[in-house]
Amino acid sequence: MILINRVKFLAVFVLMLLLIPANSPGKTGENLLNLMPVPEQVNPRQGKFRVTKTFAGAIEAVPGAETQRAARAVRRMLNRLAGRTGLFFTNNEIPVKNKPIDTALWVNFQRDGKLKLHEDESYQLTIIPGRIELKAVTDIGVIRGLETLLQLLQADETGYFFPAVVIHDQPRFPWRGLLIDPCRHFMPVEVIKRNLDGMAAVKMNVLHWHLSEDQGFRVQCQTFPKLHQLGSDGLYYTHEQVREVIAYAADRGIRVMPEFDIPGHSTGWLVGYPQLASLPGPYKIEREYGVKDPTFNPTIKATYKFFNKFFKEMAGLFPDDYFHIGGDENNGKQWDANAKIQAFKKKHNLPDNHALQAYFNRKILDILTKYKKKMVGWDEILQPGFPGTIVIQSWRGKEALRDAAKKGYNSILSNGYYIDLAQPTDFHYLNDPIPLDSDLTAEEKNRILGGEATMWAELISPETIDSRIWPRTAAIAERLWSPVHVKDVTDMYRRLDIISLQLEELGLTHLKNREMMLRRLVNGRDTQALRVLVDVIEPLKIYRRHSQATYTFFSPLTRVVDAAFPDANQARIFRQRVEGFVSGNVNKEAADVLIRDLKLWKSNHQKLKPVIARAPVLKEIETLSEDLSRITGIGLEAVELILAGKKAGPQWIEESKKVLKAAKEPRGHAELMIVTAVEQLVDALPLL
Amino acid sequence: MILINRVKFLAVFVLMLLLIPANSPGKTGENLLNLMPVPEQVNPRQGKFRVTKTFAGAIEAVPGAETQRAARAVRRMLNRLAGRTGLFFTNNEIPVKNKPIDTALWVNFQRDGKLKLHEDESYQLTIIPGRIELKAVTDIGVIRGLETLLQLLQADETGYFFPAVVIHDQPRFPWRGLLIDPCRHFMPVEVIKRNLDGMAAVKMNVLHWHLSEDQGFRVQCQTFPKLHQLGSDGLYYTHEQVREVIAYAADRGIRVMPEFDIPGHSTGWLVGYPQLASLPGPYKIEREYGVKDPTFNPTIKATYKFFNKFFKEMAGLFPDDYFHIGGDENNGKQWDANAKIQAFKKKHNLPDNHALQAYFNRKILDILTKYKKKMVGWDEILQPGFPGTIVIQSWRGKEALRDAAKKGYNSILSNGYYIDLAQPTDFHYLNDPIPLDSDLTAEEKNRILGGEATMWAELISPETIDSRIWPRTAAIAERLWSPVHVKDVTDMYRRLDIISLQLEELGLTHLKNREMMLRRLVNGRDTQALRVLVDVIEPLKIYRRHSQATYTFFSPLTRVVDAAFPDANQARIFRQRVEGFVSGNVNKEAADVLIRDLKLWKSNHQKLKPVIARAPVLKEIETLSEDLSRITGIGLEAVELILAGKKAGPQWIEESKKVLKAAKEPRGHAELMIVTAVEQLVDALPLL
Repeated sequence: MILINRVKFLAVFVLMLLLIPANSPGKTGENLLNLMPVPEQVNPRQGKFRVTKTFAGAIEAVPGAETQRAARAVRRMLNRLAGRTGLFFTNNEIPVKNKPIDTALWVNFQRDGKLKLHEDESYQLTIIPGRIELKAVTDIGVIRGLETLLQLLQADETGYFFPAVVIHDQPRFPWRGLLIDPCRHFMPVEVIKRNLDGMAAVKMNVLHWHLSEDQGFRVQCQTFPKLHQLGSDGLYYTHEQVREVIAYAADRGIRVMPEFDIPGHSTGWLVGYPQLASLPGPYKIEREYGVKDPTFNPTIKATYKFFNKFFKEMAGLFPDDYFHIGGDENNGKQWDANAKIQAFKKKHNLPDNHALQAYFNRKILDILTKYKKKMVGWDEILQPGFPGTIVIQSWRGKEALRDAAKKGYNSILSNGYYIDLAQPTDFHYLNDPIPLDSDLTAEEKNRILGGEATMWAELISPETIDSRIWPRTAAIAERLWSPVHVKDVTDMYRRLDIISLQLEELGLTHLKNREMMLRRLVNGRDTQALRVLVDVIEPLKIYRRHSQATYTFFSPLTRVVDAAFPDANQARIFRQRVEGFVSGNVNKEAADVLIRDLKLWKSNHQKLKPVIARAPVLKEIETLSEDLSRITGIGLEAVELILAGKKAGPQWIEESKKVLKAAKEPRGHAELMIVTAVEQLVDALPLL
Repeated sequence: MILINRVKFLAVFVLMLLLIPANSPGKTGENLLNLMPVPEQVNPRQGKFRVTKTFAGAIEAVPGAETQRAARAVRRMLNRLAGRTGLFFTNNEIPVKNKPIDTALWVNFQRDGKLKLHEDESYQLTIIPGRIELKAVTDIGVIRGLETLLQLLQADETGYFFPAVVIHDQPRFPWRGLLIDPCRHFMPVEVIKRNLDGMAAVKMNVLHWHLSEDQGFRVQCQTFPKLHQLGSDGLYYTHEQVREVIAYAADRGIRVMPEFDIPGHSTGWLVGYPQLASLPGPYKIEREYGVKDPTFNPTIKATYKFFNKFFKEMAGLFPDDYFHIGGDENNGKQWDANAKIQAFKKKHNLPDNHALQAYFNRKILDILTKYKKKMVGWDEILQPGFPGTIVIQSWRGKEALRDAAKKGYNSILSNGYYIDLAQPTDFHYLNDPIPLDSDLTAEEKNRILGGEATMWAELISPETIDSRIWPRTAAIAERLWSPVHVKDVTDMYRRLDIISLQLEELGLTHLKNREMMLRRLVNGRDTQALRVLVDVIEPLKIYRRHSQATYTFFSPLTRVVDAAFPDANQARIFRQRVEGFVSGNVNKEAADVLIRDLKLWKSNHQKLKPVIARAPVLKEIETLSEDLSRITGIGLEAVELILAGKKAGPQWIEESKKVLKAAKEPRGHAELMIVTAVEQLVDALPLL
């Protein structure tokens, strides 16, 4: 299917190349269209399509194709277009006809898209003055193309318009996912829904729903009701809610793959069913984080009877072909401590716990296969003797991805897409599942299906989750959709700022919740000074935050560190400016901007101090704020000396370096992100 | 029940009065505690209860009382306390014991509260250094007291604390409601839930859920599935969602009363069941607003058969004692146009359509009574011959409230609480169901149960609904809870600002969505200049907005007018300052503030102009922005002349008045709220 379409597309492209001068993607021309992800082919044309209140959409589909999903997608697009433009559209019903009629947007597709891996998501979008044509093989392609159309909206003094353009587009990888973990902290249905909207906006197509953990079992189970009744604090999704989420995702061309993490990470299950654990209970819902001991007992029949019934129910609830069984971080302690399990290993020639887990996984695979589900697991499940139908999700390193591909397994990349670790966007963006210099064969490359951003929830709440997912995940979405050579970091950041604002219209809270959090923090005071500080700090990265305090399920996630963004824009821009300045590539205007920023920060602590005095929750960042003012004072001196062509004394340098070193120390689980840039300024000074 | 409790309370109060100097409510002392609603009795004490990470709560209840609801309420309180203070509490499980243990917060109640009218909601809160006691008759009283406790949180340089205080509190009225209309625009479950949290925060206890309208039938009906299938655009609440909302409300001590509006306002029903209409169909979901013709046929048996089955199902779904049947705005056109209905009226001696509707209402009353529900309706249902069990909701005027009380009916006030009409908070605040000078007898007064704010949804979306409900509804909540003499408008506004910020922690979006809307409006530009304008404009009031354009279900609610608040703080404060200035009651500092504001506004249009040039959606407010700068220029001149002791020439006065008059003209369905204040400045000038 995919090959045929590719051939068809190639034919179209060849034809087009003969007719028009095509721009290769990644160049300035079409990037100024602010599209994210960048389409495969963008060919700007002369002219504009003016959006007025008579704007209307109509749909043509082959008889038998179900047009309601496409009509709902057009309806949503019209709502968003009205929302942005303030226009009172006069044609709000969307006609479905089989012959073109005179309408502004003409949508055409051949058949219903299926929520299956490798489904056709391609589309062609042609905008000329007075007419827009969106053609696709499937209605899922239509859904993708409508997002592109909305991203194209521009304005001038006359009004809103779409620039004339011809776009041919299709994804590079068929699996472009986001994992949401509602276990460490529960995420109500509306959180999932608004993030599905965000995913659709950047053309992602898999929600990986991590539904069980030590900290909670999060889905209603009719067969074994103690799972959700005892294992969730009452925080779980009902069957109706699961179906609601699946339908909402399907309407946006997004698959929903459930994960039931076994045999480890399973305390949540064992609270209700301790008899299935490897050591006697009772078990309580885990409140802390990290790798815990409770593990299913893989040596008793009851375990497989249980999973047989369990997966039967869940296979009926979740229509996706793929079921994720986790399989990660089983520390084996409970197995080692149980003599019967040790005896079982000996009897079955299972030399170690890895072999025992492989034994367990094979049994689970049989069950899933019976219910027509394909098994997905974290890279730990990559063990000899499994059929080629299983999918490996690489999290510990990219080797597993290559390994799996070489051994004949399909695989998806998550290593490098761990958005919970508060790393900068460009780090994720440049993390390519198949880098240009990959030595894999074409066949092996085809087994790399794509990737998934993973939103683990130890340190997020419904209030902060969006700011941890967005906008960074839009860059990951581009990595997985756009051609391999689209990797201009500067341009990515430029477009990301624009897309980030657009994501708000879907109800995402990544921007607006920060201001709310600042208001709560300042206890009725002005938020301005705190915002200036928060703009240049980031939460501690990787797993360092956990070394600062014991976070539990109950810990507040409302502090300054939680209001800070993982990729602080202001700090990044300042670092770039310093880069330019010290490389001598600087003009008066650029130097002035640098000085303006440094002065703002230098004077900020005096403004923040009285706020901190009335808001004890801010005490923990008081010295961080002091340090910001102190180091930017140093930076200012350095810039002024450099501009005056003066030199610095060794004592000043030494003192400054000491202050700068101290400023790198985290406070309140956050860190200043401009210290190295100020160091660069100091280093750029000629010595006396 | 209520009388006994009141007597008990009185005994307690008398005892207290003997022991301590009680402050009467409404005075400065306890208002500085920033409580809203103001409690019945507040007695400040010396000292502070320090909140540290060892803060913990425990519950004592009489054996047999169900403590889970109280425990969940304490759990939520701890979460919010941790959220505000950033403290990592070490005791997160809430023990339930029958003997006092050493714990920070000791909760004690006698029995489970019932979600019934007149249930006991009283509580006593005693805070001394090291210990907090919250005592109540019911766990609903506990829930009310926990909100008071959270409002008491303060901070100083040492940390967070609760001031020592003894509070005795109970509501003035037993019915304190908010109507939400998810028909004109659908409001998803999360919108309802966050507003239930807001209601609980200000001690409201009835959600009036308006579930059917011309624009949609919004609840799943198993007996007559075409109601929701054909009448809702797919936007309806499932039974599970209804139960979820009711449980969520019950957890917060809030009743949920459904409204099924009949016989008019019923197009949504008749799409699926046109045979029950007074004229032949077919019917389509209404997209426009106002009073529409479609009406149930009250003269055929099928209608009552239908409602018998319908209310049987709904009586099972909604546990509340009260069912609202609407009954408003039946224009009678369909009845007049149907000869059979006219013949029926003659045959049954029904002189007019009012009598026919009374006939219909009696039939419906019989059905509701059969299912043990009490009937509530808008004041149109106040017709002779109904039993004293029905409740009249007064919307057209306060006379209906008095009339009903005098005629022996219970009644609730909504006239004056129509928060959809964008009127200022003090207007609603001073609207008392039983003013001090009321001439009703004590018995008649007792029949006035309270009131309800009504959030009709023609001009709101899930994005803007919160900013139309909050914070103004907190003032209505105070009117209905606090003693009659609590009515200091200045102090109400002072506390309202504080409560408004606290409401955000519950997920309410009234503040944060405005900034988001401004970002969308400015199309990537800085929001600052637009915010300055929006801060001093308000949406057109009463029903004037509908005279400016034909709003439909599809109209965008994302324009400048939608980002403007109904009670613009900045404008109100400016008007007060001008009031002080022209009354001569002014110092240099106050004059400087006035001048600072006027200068900000005067220069604002120059900053907003380039933004408008790139955001066509702002074009409609361009001249409004111009006028703001123009009139504040005039205001500035006037202030400077007054301060210099100079006079104004008649021509300047005349020209200024012309400009000011023109500035009153609405633009973009919004109006400038400082024009009259500037007029006052001009009028204060002595003439040459």
